[in-house]
Amino acid sequence: MKITEKMKSLVDASRKELQSRGSMSHDPKRRALLGQSLAYAGALGAGGLAAKDALAQEALGVPPSAKEHGRPLPPEEYGLPSKFEKHVKRRRTDVFVNRQNFSDWSMTPIQHQHGIVTPNGLIFERHHNGVPDIDPEQHRFAIHGMVRQPLVFTMSDLMRYPAVSKFYFMECSGNGLTDWLTPRSKTVQQTHGLLSCAQWTGVPVSTLLEEAGVLKEATWGLAEGTDGSSHGRSVPIKKLMEDALLVYASNGEMLRPENGYPLRLFIPGWEGNISIKWLRRIKLGDKPWHLRSETARYTDPMPNGKWRQFSMEMEAKSVITSPSGGMTVKPGMVEIQGFAWSGNGKIRSVDVTVDGGRTWREARLEEPVIDKCLTRFRMTYKWDGGPIVIASRATDSTGYTQPTVDDIKKVRAITGFVQHHNGIQPWAIAANGEVSNVIAG
Amino acid sequence: MKITEKMKSLVDASRKELQSRGSMSHDPKRRALLGQSLAYAGALGAGGLAAKDALAQEALGVPPSAKEHGRPLPPEEYGLPSKFEKHVKRRRTDVFVNRQNFSDWSMTPIQHQHGIVTPNGLIFERHHNGVPDIDPEQHRFAIHGMVRQPLVFTMSDLMRYPAVSKFYFMECSGNGLTDWLTPRSKTVQQTHGLLSCAQWTGVPVSTLLEEAGVLKEATWGLAEGTDGSSHGRSVPIKKLMEDALLVYASNGEMLRPENGYPLRLFIPGWEGNISIKWLRRIKLGDKPWHLRSETARYTDPMPNGKWRQFSMEMEAKSVITSPSGGMTVKPGMVEIQGFAWSGNGKIRSVDVTVDGGRTWREARLEEPVIDKCLTRFRMTYKWDGGPIVIASRATDSTGYTQPTVDDIKKVRAITGFVQHHNGIQPWAIAANGEVSNVIAG
Repeated sequence: MKITEKMKSLVDASRKELQSRGSMSHDPKRRALLGQSLAYAGALGAGGLAAKDALAQEALGVPPSAKEHGRPLPPEEYGLPSKFEKHVKRRRTDVFVNRQNFSDWSMTPIQHQHGIVTPNGLIFERHHNGVPDIDPEQHRFAIHGMVRQPLVFTMSDLMRYPAVSKFYFMECSGNGLTDWLTPRSKTVQQTHGLLSCAQWTGVPVSTLLEEAGVLKEATWGLAEGTDGSSHGRSVPIKKLMEDALLVYASNGEMLRPENGYPLRLFIPGWEGNISIKWLRRIKLGDKPWHLRSETARYTDPMPNGKWRQFSMEMEAKSVITSPSGGMTVKPGMVEIQGFAWSGNGKIRSVDVTVDGGRTWREARLEEPVIDKCLTRFRMTYKWDGGPIVIASRATDSTGYTQPTVDDIKKVRAITGFVQHHNGIQPWAIAANGEVSNVIAG
Repeated sequence: MKITEKMKSLVDASRKELQSRGSMSHDPKRRALLGQSLAYAGALGAGGLAAKDALAQEALGVPPSAKEHGRPLPPEEYGLPSKFEKHVKRRRTDVFVNRQNFSDWSMTPIQHQHGIVTPNGLIFERHHNGVPDIDPEQHRFAIHGMVRQPLVFTMSDLMRYPAVSKFYFMECSGNGLTDWLTPRSKTVQQTHGLLSCAQWTGVPVSTLLEEAGVLKEATWGLAEGTDGSSHGRSVPIKKLMEDALLVYASNGEMLRPENGYPLRLFIPGWEGNISIKWLRRIKLGDKPWHLRSETARYTDPMPNGKWRQFSMEMEAKSVITSPSGGMTVKPGMVEIQGFAWSGNGKIRSVDVTVDGGRTWREARLEEPVIDKCLTRFRMTYKWDGGPIVIASRATDSTGYTQPTVDDIKKVRAITGFVQHHNGIQPWAIAANGEVSNVIAG
């Protein structure tokens, strides 16, 4: 048999093998890794190298894209995702009721997110009366109330101030198993998709408060948006002075309309609802305003029948995003990965269990690990095909460790819709590889 | 005069003042900062606080957006920039000739970029034969040539490997004053817009080379794309093993088609042309391939008439992005800011001159400062309205300092189109506030 004939039969064999395996198939006993081997060097003798090379190229083929012109790009363009990525988008969850067009939300597909940056088109959003399309030239922002001199700013004026750019997570206080009594959320987008992370650019609120001159008796600020709901929140001046920002850009470009264009408040580490979008004013006063979103909403039922107000820090939390509910995994090497974050500092460590919480192993944290920012953790695991339950738990730089759902039940009353839930999220992997939400089970 | 009458006349006065100032006007002698003061407390006596507050609210007005429903968002959506941001887009520069649809490029509007992350829709791109729209399920990637076992990967297989996410800049070797003999570029998008920065996610090339088994005699890899031009480059195996990545995502989501979807090579710190997009194979060999882009293009003319090959590291460089060519500034506080980066390490410092290079002052570097990544620098400057020339120069962690254009002329031959130009970019601010490119003067 000549070399060329040998090669032809080997190419046929390799094609057959590729076909029979399918794109995700994998024999974990044979090899730890996943490349489709085309090595039959032993059979080829002296001509091995050239033959193997020809073999690889033949198996690779010449795809149509290498034989024709590509699509010309228009000379001026804003780039969009590939048409093959249409499934990666924000979604409204289907587990809530009383939905109406003008008060709605959409959740980030964190199971598809790579790295720590949420692209601007996928940052989650919550609106209480639709999304206004504000002309930045018409927009005004005021600081008034208990100040020595009230100030009104145009966007152009604001953007001339020294700004900072900071990587921070943003999380809705309703994120994470939002329906405790009858949990039905299947995917991590539904359970934890009210979570995003970006590099936010803006002017420190402290700069402008100092210019306005805060009166001694002032202790709270009222931040109000210019949307149809005039959504407002009371913010302690201490926090406004510490690290609050008047944000106009995320991930390098001006905010998207649904994320507050042209100006929003950003309160690092606190529940998203307080980072008022379409910000028109901060009024200083000497007590909180007790607005709807700090009395009827965004409060925590306690075991004694009372409701806790102003619990605004998002405590340490983590979730495995892959594998997660709705995915299917194959036996062999599985890269377990997810996010950890804390409104009170940096992530110090993340533990991962693959036996339902009996034992835990420390995961790798990916740099950079930044204060009040998503941190990605990873752990490579060789799955033998038996049913398992996986979960993660985060510890932050204050020493606080993420609790189990049962831990939370000891100190909080459980009603249908609960805010500030940072419980451990377990996922079950069945013998057929299907991943499901254990709590929603 | 009653309080209400006083208030009315003050509101009228403040309106008049706001009108006469316009949105960017500012009197630098009166105050360093820019908020429109509405403080007339002295005239108000005891009722001052309430009156001032009413005044501020009146001047602020109630915009239409607070009086009507916003736009409902569709339940499933990919967010897009505001309609008021249409001017922020990639652009082809107009200073080159011999342009045709299938070989083209578009440049990042870095004068509009905030922070260090370039949003995916604005990452610069260069294509040699149009943009292919590749179905990731059909795509194959091979490692072959001087290896023990050639390997072919599907995208699903590749994406099961342990990946890393890294913030790196990407720069075309032609970036920065690309026409030396008759420079005509007016804006920083035209002079330096072949520059972007993202968090790139992918599998280290070393992982797969180790699996394939690199033969001892192999020293170079041939990386080839599956676009119509079959664009290819030779890469030393040393660099492939050190930090090269097989990248499939940028800033959290899969690559845009024009940036290499679904797979590209990423060679940190080196000229963008070598980070082959739409990557279909890496073939290992024992010498470089001397392809078109490393002989006829992407080489440097030297004073002795020869051309330097394989000068692939992008040396330390910086540019002021604001104020920059085409902008207009007003007297008073000016936030001078820009980017610094180096293919050889971290940025150690950036100096800024406001007197055409006679004296330099160290700028603030904004965290995080990351190896082979854009670093943003800032300097607050009080401009008195006289004509000045501003510029920046970067020093990296190797101690190398960015040269002037004259420095470069001493060691390189100057032809019309020159690669690897990292000269200092000066901008002139005229007495009328207009900013222009001194070199293009």
